[in-house]
Amino acid sequence: MQKIFGIEQSWLSCIGCGFKADLLDERKFRCPKCGNLYDIDHNFGSLNKTLGDYIKVFDERAALSAHQSEDPAIRSGVWRFKEWIMPFMPDNLIITLNEGIVPIVRAGKHLQGWVGDIDLYIIMEGMTPTGSFKDFGGTVMMSVANAAGIRAVGCASTGDTSAMAAAYATAAGIQCAVILPKGKVTGVQLAQPLVYGAKIILLPGDFDDCMRVMQELVANYGLYPANSLNPARIEGHQATVFQIAQYFGWQLPEWITVPVGNGSNCSSIGKAMRLMERFGQGKISRILGCQSEAANPLGKSWNLAQKDGEAALEEWEAKYEPVKAGDTSATAARIGNPVSRDKVMREITHSYGAMQVAAEHDLNEAVSICGKDGHFVCPQTGIALAGVRNAAKEGWIKKGDRVVAVSTATGLKFAETAVAHLQHNIISVSDCKTETVAKILRG
Amino acid sequence: MQKIFGIEQSWLSCIGCGFKADLLDERKFRCPKCGNLYDIDHNFGSLNKTLGDYIKVFDERAALSAHQSEDPAIRSGVWRFKEWIMPFMPDNLIITLNEGIVPIVRAGKHLQGWVGDIDLYIIMEGMTPTGSFKDFGGTVMMSVANAAGIRAVGCASTGDTSAMAAAYATAAGIQCAVILPKGKVTGVQLAQPLVYGAKIILLPGDFDDCMRVMQELVANYGLYPANSLNPARIEGHQATVFQIAQYFGWQLPEWITVPVGNGSNCSSIGKAMRLMERFGQGKISRILGCQSEAANPLGKSWNLAQKDGEAALEEWEAKYEPVKAGDTSATAARIGNPVSRDKVMREITHSYGAMQVAAEHDLNEAVSICGKDGHFVCPQTGIALAGVRNAAKEGWIKKGDRVVAVSTATGLKFAETAVAHLQHNIISVSDCKTETVAKILRG
Repeated sequence: MQKIFGIEQSWLSCIGCGFKADLLDERKFRCPKCGNLYDIDHNFGSLNKTLGDYIKVFDERAALSAHQSEDPAIRSGVWRFKEWIMPFMPDNLIITLNEGIVPIVRAGKHLQGWVGDIDLYIIMEGMTPTGSFKDFGGTVMMSVANAAGIRAVGCASTGDTSAMAAAYATAAGIQCAVILPKGKVTGVQLAQPLVYGAKIILLPGDFDDCMRVMQELVANYGLYPANSLNPARIEGHQATVFQIAQYFGWQLPEWITVPVGNGSNCSSIGKAMRLMERFGQGKISRILGCQSEAANPLGKSWNLAQKDGEAALEEWEAKYEPVKAGDTSATAARIGNPVSRDKVMREITHSYGAMQVAAEHDLNEAVSICGKDGHFVCPQTGIALAGVRNAAKEGWIKKGDRVVAVSTATGLKFAETAVAHLQHNIISVSDCKTETVAKILRG
Repeated sequence: MQKIFGIEQSWLSCIGCGFKADLLDERKFRCPKCGNLYDIDHNFGSLNKTLGDYIKVFDERAALSAHQSEDPAIRSGVWRFKEWIMPFMPDNLIITLNEGIVPIVRAGKHLQGWVGDIDLYIIMEGMTPTGSFKDFGGTVMMSVANAAGIRAVGCASTGDTSAMAAAYATAAGIQCAVILPKGKVTGVQLAQPLVYGAKIILLPGDFDDCMRVMQELVANYGLYPANSLNPARIEGHQATVFQIAQYFGWQLPEWITVPVGNGSNCSSIGKAMRLMERFGQGKISRILGCQSEAANPLGKSWNLAQKDGEAALEEWEAKYEPVKAGDTSATAARIGNPVSRDKVMREITHSYGAMQVAAEHDLNEAVSICGKDGHFVCPQTGIALAGVRNAAKEGWIKKGDRVVAVSTATGLKFAETAVAHLQHNIISVSDCKTETVAKILRG
């Protein structure tokens, strides 16, 4: 088979030692020299375009999105920015589910009152094919897997990652294995990978056993990893920043805020902004990373003194240590030692950003407050919004600053959690008389 | 308070006797003369625009949808078509959650293989704020309620209607009552209205008691109905047709197919096409209404002989009788006597359309087949897709015909149903050895 594109066009680069590897040949996504994660980079020079050239193309595509097209750059809110994401991918190999054209909504009056006097927006990344932000990365990861001729991908995840991996794998005609602990997952967690036709394998162990088996399958049996290790996902997540920039006439807001689990969102947002800087974009956003109290290794170790760039990063790295994650509604970010922690620290310090830790009460309250504005967001979005509120109180976010929060998933995936926190608002009446109900409604 | 708009601009018109009523003054939505349902009509003449004028405006708005705007006609895929939906509504009274900019996707290869040689698309109306097509109607209904100065709306619904009503009511600052039978609703059914801050009232009775109380509250206590009676919802649902037309360069497909529960979708699709005909649109689509075997009063009574217009309608009306609904996965369309049955019959016959009844096995299979293309749709969407397959087999839909199916909700709302049908695909292994799992993946 002829090579689709080579190391001189798009390549892997170790974030530890700089070792370069071929994106389409790679199967394990750990540097063989130092064991660190990879970044992806591209030969943008060969495209020979200015910032203005790119913007013109991206705006033209956006203007066509309501009309029929077979072009993935028109149909997808990720591939709209193809030249900044995976420029050498042939269109016919792209696996898209028409993901990523999502609303950016201004905070409603309840949320506005709750966070204070800032210009707050939410990008609704739960309004994607599988209901979470993961689809932004999934379309790119699976296109790369497709171009690389991969036959089987796998992950060990009870949530959004397995849904995304299963959906895009089946669209690509690639087998997907989802490895889960028997008796420890709910019907709702099984539903998406099942419907998407993944091979769901239940092990008689705990989640750690699943992760170990998964890692060994990647290391020794050639299974292609669909988890956070895979840097192609980060490329797609950059579209969050590009859409935000496009929405605001290519001016980035003062802050972009995200919940931090394994850290892929912080990584991609930082990477996207560094790319825009490279093309001459002016001011970039500061990244506000937010964690729950139950799983705050990055929040806990972050140095509030806000020294500049290198010094801040060094101090953070020195102080960082994993935590044992406790209980939280925000189960998707319940991670004591994030895979992409190094990238998170690098991107937050580069952007002169900050970390915030959201109290459990506050993150649940944020979900209810958004609900009162008509938006049902997941508890992880609650972390980001509670973080914004804290950062505004502490003076990191100034009065009038424009802030965009990333809503990472639809609340429908966390319906039981929401009910548990609001049960007390249900009114049981003693009879079926209309007058009884009318009295309650008047009262 | 000054009247926002009057009966000479937008009015209610009884579909039985033609009695006219004022939209903003109406509270009960049943004709006082003959008890029939209302349609809404508008004074389009006063707008003095041609079909081409409208299209130009609608296309300009669509082209701006990726950019910041406070204009609901830019932010919403429903209000984009404002002049055809609720032309005299002042922008500042519109209650929108940025709904209705949804993907229209071409059938993937699994679905294509399953339905046969037709040009099939799905409009993904589950990708809306509350996860169902109801939001298309909700934004218009609640804007009208807002303009009418309504303080409280209500409904008795375990599903999409209560979620929609609660979300749009809270966004409007209007109280919403959801009346449900105690002990007979699941946590997931409660989650959305709870999060959206509705007053959830549990009665010690069954669902019929809830409906009776609800109807009496509307008839005698001034509660504003958010259920299918309310014709403002139909106005918003028309955007489905307008978006489909816009997508295909203002050419309507040969067929538009929908599941039929209470019938609001058939009503609105027919109404939208008649409006377009009025402005000079050429060929309109034929409507394929689809019901499950368990709840098929319209399918059962439909006359296959396909006489033309008036004669077909008369025969259908004469044959129609309610059924007692049986068990089906498609619970949202489990309705034995649809509220809007008269409108459904009128619109299907006007469009030279057809009815199809989907076998329970087929509608569940359609959900799995869509899943294999990476789309998780609800069982009601399964009804429509199984109906398309039947209609193609029977020769109603011809080879190569373009067909657009309306996907009415995200499968996430029906996760348990999906799991129940696919349980047998889960593989349990006997140990936690990587080699064991590797063997399964190879096999």
